Amino acid sequence: MCEANAYFNSDGQEVLFMEAVDVIEPYEDGLKLVDIFGRQKFVKARIKDMTLLNHRIVLEETAGFKHDSD
Amino acid sequence: MCEANAYFNSDGQEVLFMEAVDVIEPYEDGLKLVDIFGRQKFVKARIKDMTLLNHRIVLEETAGFKHDSD
Repeated sequence: MCEANAYFNSDGQEVLFMEAVDVIEPYEDGLKLVDIFGRQKFVKARIKDMTLLNHRIVLEETAGFKHDSD
Repeated sequence: MCEANAYFNSDGQEVLFMEAVDVIEPYEDGLKLVDIFGRQKFVKARIKDMTLLNHRIVLEETAGFKHDSD
């Protein structure tokens, strides 16, 4: 399985935001993430870097950062 | 291996841009893609959608589209 974990980089520390992410797509001024169970999260962030072989996505907050989960 | 293939969506058709992509990160006003062999491509594009389980990244051209390979 090739899902990845999404982290925020906060003050030099990486904080897990969402596990087992399958889908990432732009949504309004941020991103929509969907995990392998179909759970969605919307976040005002952009991709800072992503290494698929390491299953890692690092997100970076954009202006007006907040996140909501469904 | 969890690399993905990157495609451009052009007139409704998907055109392969780079195979076996490992790393994606923002670079200037576009993206830097690095494949599992360490080859890099820079492209004025953004991620349109990405499904990791399907090993697919779809890119979308941004203004001033062009791409260079190293």
